[in-house]
Formats: sequence, C-alpha cells, structure tokens
Amino acid sequence: MSEMVNVALDAMGGDNAPGEIIAGAVDAVGKRDNITVHLVGDHDAIQNELKKYSYPEGRIKQVDSTEVIETGEPPVMAIRTKKDSSIVVGLNLVRAKECDAFISAGSSGAVLVGGQLIVGRIRGVERPPLAPVIPTKKGVSLLVDCGANVDARPSHMLQFAKMGSIYMEYVMGVKNPKVSILNIGAEEEKGNALVKETYPMLKTCPDINFGGSIEARDIAEGEADVIVCEAFAGNVALKMYEGVGNVLLSEMKGAMMATPFTKLGALLIKKSLKETLKRFDATEYGGAPLLGLNGLVVKTHGNAKRKEVSNSIIQCISFKEEKINDRIKEKLDI
Amino acid sequence: MSEMVNVALDAMGGDNAPGEIIAGAVDAVGKRDNITVHLVGDHDAIQNELKKYSYPEGRIKQVDSTEVIETGEPPVMAIRTKKDSSIVVGLNLVRAKECDAFISAGSSGAVLVGGQLIVGRIRGVERPPLAPVIPTKKGVSLLVDCGANVDARPSHMLQFAKMGSIYMEYVMGVKNPKVSILNIGAEEEKGNALVKETYPMLKTCPDINFGGSIEARDIAEGEADVIVCEAFAGNVALKMYEGVGNVLLSEMKGAMMATPFTKLGALLIKKSLKETLKRFDATEYGGAPLLGLNGLVVKTHGNAKRKEVSNSIIQCISFKEEKINDRIKEKLDI
Repeated sequence: MSEMVNVALDAMGGDNAPGEIIAGAVDAVGKRDNITVHLVGDHDAIQNELKKYSYPEGRIKQVDSTEVIETGEPPVMAIRTKKDSSIVVGLNLVRAKECDAFISAGSSGAVLVGGQLIVGRIRGVERPPLAPVIPTKKGVSLLVDCGANVDARPSHMLQFAKMGSIYMEYVMGVKNPKVSILNIGAEEEKGNALVKETYPMLKTCPDINFGGSIEARDIAEGEADVIVCEAFAGNVALKMYEGVGNVLLSEMKGAMMATPFTKLGALLIKKSLKETLKRFDATEYGGAPLLGLNGLVVKTHGNAKRKEVSNSIIQCISFKEEKINDRIKEKLDI
Repeated sequence: MSEMVNVALDAMGGDNAPGEIIAGAVDAVGKRDNITVHLVGDHDAIQNELKKYSYPEGRIKQVDSTEVIETGEPPVMAIRTKKDSSIVVGLNLVRAKECDAFISAGSSGAVLVGGQLIVGRIRGVERPPLAPVIPTKKGVSLLVDCGANVDARPSHMLQFAKMGSIYMEYVMGVKNPKVSILNIGAEEEKGNALVKETYPMLKTCPDINFGGSIEARDIAEGEADVIVCEAFAGNVALKMYEGVGNVLLSEMKGAMMATPFTKLGALLIKKSLKETLKRFDATEYGGAPLLGLNGLVVKTHGNAKRKEVSNSIIQCISFKEEKINDRIKEKLDI
C-alpha cells in the first residue's frame, strides 16, 4: 500500500461549514485508501456532523480548536491573535509535519498570510503564488498568480512559471504543459513594463515549454496550460470568468423559464446542457494550491460544497506522491 | 433642424470592410437627419458597395485614400509612413475640423496612436483612455481604460474617472453614474500600489459619484456604471468577458444540437434565448471612444458589422450635441 497522506481540513471555514466540509472528508476517505483527514474545529459541531456518516475506522480524526477567523478580519492580525483558530491550528499541523497538507474554504487572506507565516516558504522561493485551476474548452488551465502577491517582479513571475509548470504536469497530468504569459496583445513588444521584462526571461528558460503571450480572450478557449500573470491581473481574469459565467447562465435560465413552450424546450435539452456545464464547473477540479511552501496549502472556494472539498483532498495525494516540492527545489536551483 | 454632425468613417478597416462598414453608414444616414458620413478609402471599392444602396443625397461623401494600415503593423511607424492610409486621412479630417468624429474598425494600435498624434489631446488631459461600453445584467457599464495606456499613474486614473463619468451621463444617458475602481477585494485597504494611491483621490473627488472598489466578479452583474482601471487590467477584464461569453455560448449551442430531442428543445427556446442574448451583444452599443482628444475618435470591434457601425455613427450625435469635450475641459479645470 502506498504511504498515508495526512490532510488537515478546516471544518469551520466557508459558507457551508461544517456540513459540506465534513461530507467532503467522508467522501474522500471513502474513495481513497491512503488518506487520513484531520478535521480541525469546534469539537461538538464536528461530532454532530460526523455521527451522520459511517467511514473507515481511524481515517477521520478530530483536532479541536475554539476560534474562527471571519472573512472580513484583517489577515495578519487575525493570524497573530487567534492562535486557537481552525486556520492557525491546521497550518501548525503542516508546520509540525504531522500533516502533509492543509485545506480551507475560509478567509483567503488569512490562508495566504498564514501559509507564509506559519508553514513558511521553501528556501529560495521569493513569493508563493495562488494557482487556481480553471476549466476551459479543451480541459483545464492553471492561472498563476491569482491574488497572493500584487506588484510582482519579473523574477517572481519566472518562479511562478516554473512552479506552475511542475504542478500542471505532475498533479494535473498535462504532459509538457504550454506556459504562456498573460498579455494585452500577441506580439512580443506588447505589454506593460512587467510583462516586457518578464517575457525574455521566460523565452530563454530551459525548464518550461514557453508559448509566448496569451490574450485573456483565449484563456477560456484553452490556448495555454499554464498562464503566468501578476496577481492583480490574474485575480481580475479569474473573477471575470466566474462573474460572466454566472450572469450568462442565470440569464439563460431565465430565458428558458419564460413561457410554457420554453419550459418544455428546457426539459428536452436539460440533460445535454448539464453534461456540458459540468465541464465548466470549477468545483470539479478542487481548490487552488498556494505553491512554494514547506507543505501544501490549498484554498477552496468560499462556497465550496462536498465535491470540491473531496476533490481538493484527493489532489493532495498526487502532490505528495509526485514529490512536487522536491521538483520545485530542483527547478529553482535551490 | 439640429446642427449637422460630420463623421469620417474608415471604409477599409476591420474584417468586414468595406461591405459591412458602408452598409452601416447607409443605415445611419437613413435613421438620422443630422449626420453626414465621409467614407475614407479606396475610390472604386467604395463606389462598388455604395451603388447597391439608395440614401439621402449628399449625406454620404467619398474621401479617397490609397493605403491601408494592416492590423499587424507597428502603429507608430504605420501612422508616420502611411500618410495616405484611410486611418491617417480620416484622422486628418478631424484635426482640420472638417469632421467631428472618426470611426475605425481597423488596427487598434494605429487608431490609438494616430488619435493622439494627429487629432491631439485636449490640453491638460494626460492620457486619453479607450472606454468601451460593455453589456451587464442591469444595462451597460463603461470600462475606462481598456488598452490605451499601460502603467498608468493615479492622476491619470482620476482623469479617467471624470471623463468616463461625463461620457456615461451625457452620451449613454445614465444619470449620476456610479464610478467604482477595479480592485481585488471590496475593502479600502485592498489592492496594488496604484489602486491604493488612487482610491483616496477618487473618494474625495467632488465631480464623481464614487462607489468604492468593485471586484471583477461584479462587473457583469452591473454593480457600477463606470469602472476605472489601469489599461492592462481593463484589457484583461474586457477580453475575458468576450472570451468566456464566446466559449460558453458555443458550448451551449453544441449541447442543444446534440440529439433530435435537444434540437426540438432548442427550437422551442430559440426566440426567448435570442432576446436575452441580444442584451449581451456588445455590438448593440457601438464602439469604444478614445476620450480626451480634440474631437471624437471611436474604435469599433475588428469584426464589426453594419449594426455596430451604424450605432457608433449615431453615438457621435450625442457626443457633439452634449458638448462632451467642453464638459471634460470644465471638470478637469482646464
């Protein structure tokens, strides 16, 4: 049997905690033999949910914590003062090497700050980027960085490219992933100062399969496997993707429910449409890793449900088995 | 009768030139009495199209030019060397005050550079932004800047806010438009250095109705009327909007055409769906103005068809009648 992967899971974070979080943990240990989930949070709240399920003996453990960091709290202060919060306790399990990974649907800011302050960066990693996987017409792509470090420098972007490429190849299974830089035109001379300075560094980097510039228009088409970007632009791209998707789908639903005729029509296309839309459902692909830390830290959507939680837990297996952090150290010449 | 508005139109620019461009001109002069269109381009090519239509005597004029700037050409060089291109000749008509506006579906770069070099900035305008109107759940919003000036400074952003607010109110008819700054979180302390420096300037500006930060996720929801952003982020937002829309619609079309059942279903919802999607069709709202020039310069989509061309021409009326440039001078204290 392969080595056990220990995952600390924030049972208190996100809109659907603790119910959906714990359901996701139960699903994950049911699907894979080599995962143990450590649920971090309020003792009684977790107990009340856990007793609804049966699951393999000893593969779900409880770690008590009494505090919760709310989404609106200033992250640095929250991490420093709420020592018994589910996020701080969970991250400390990774720091102490008792767990391989920590997953949270809670405050993004606290997870990002706490990941750096508690788990710590791999020596030589300048800025650990947040790298969500997004669905595209051709499969999935990795957007790196999407919000961890605004005002990045070219040397950071080069590291994002290398780390993203490794994650995409060994965790997501895309061979020799095409790495492109987010730009406002296809030509090499296009872009802002950061992109113009980064471009030649990526072009001459032997560790990645560089595909040049990508315009935001071509992201959803799946024209690149890894998209390197500064966090502000990446965050705009990611949230625009989600926002436009939500609005278009809700408007189309409205159109389908407009009259008895359209309702009948909707009934006839429902199954086919559902299959198509499932491919564009970000929750199918698990959470976003914060790359370059001494351990794995994953941020799921705030509204994550059991499927996203379960998929995020299962992703931790490849991360450990493929020794992603050793590969990162090697490629960053650390 | 109101004063005649003279619009120079690049008959050679864009994927559908000259056919759709000229059709749009014919539509516009048919709809409004106070427009004269000056078609700039190859004499014979324009003649061949024009003879297909009847239109009010003297309301479409021809201005010959012999060169065309292609999309791939470096813009500055192209503007300097192709003196007899449709873009340069058209912009010169605005510079000479023979026309009030110039519209092109051709090279964005050449239109932006040419607008500044030939038509020139209003004295005091630091950087003229490109400000496309995008459809939202609640109507339309203006994204300013979307690609004219990368690496903007806070003082530029403040001008974008004022000019965008004026355009939205007096050309698009949105009373007291809500102006928000594109950001990666809703709180005032969020953002990159540029946003953090710009935010308080917008907050204390008496000339705009400032609504704080907007996340990209809320743009399509219509949460702001004017969205102020640096050109790189704005371009990413705009193109992500277009790209996600295209991919989702094409995938849904595929799902509807999958089987005889789904085809029947599609037939039943077609009309309702078309009406909904029409609201999200950017071509309904005309092209993107380049604000802050000594005249109006409008860039339409490269694939613009007659409707977008016609709508762009008609927008020039409000721009002139509402004396947008006088209002800009006043608000910028020029």
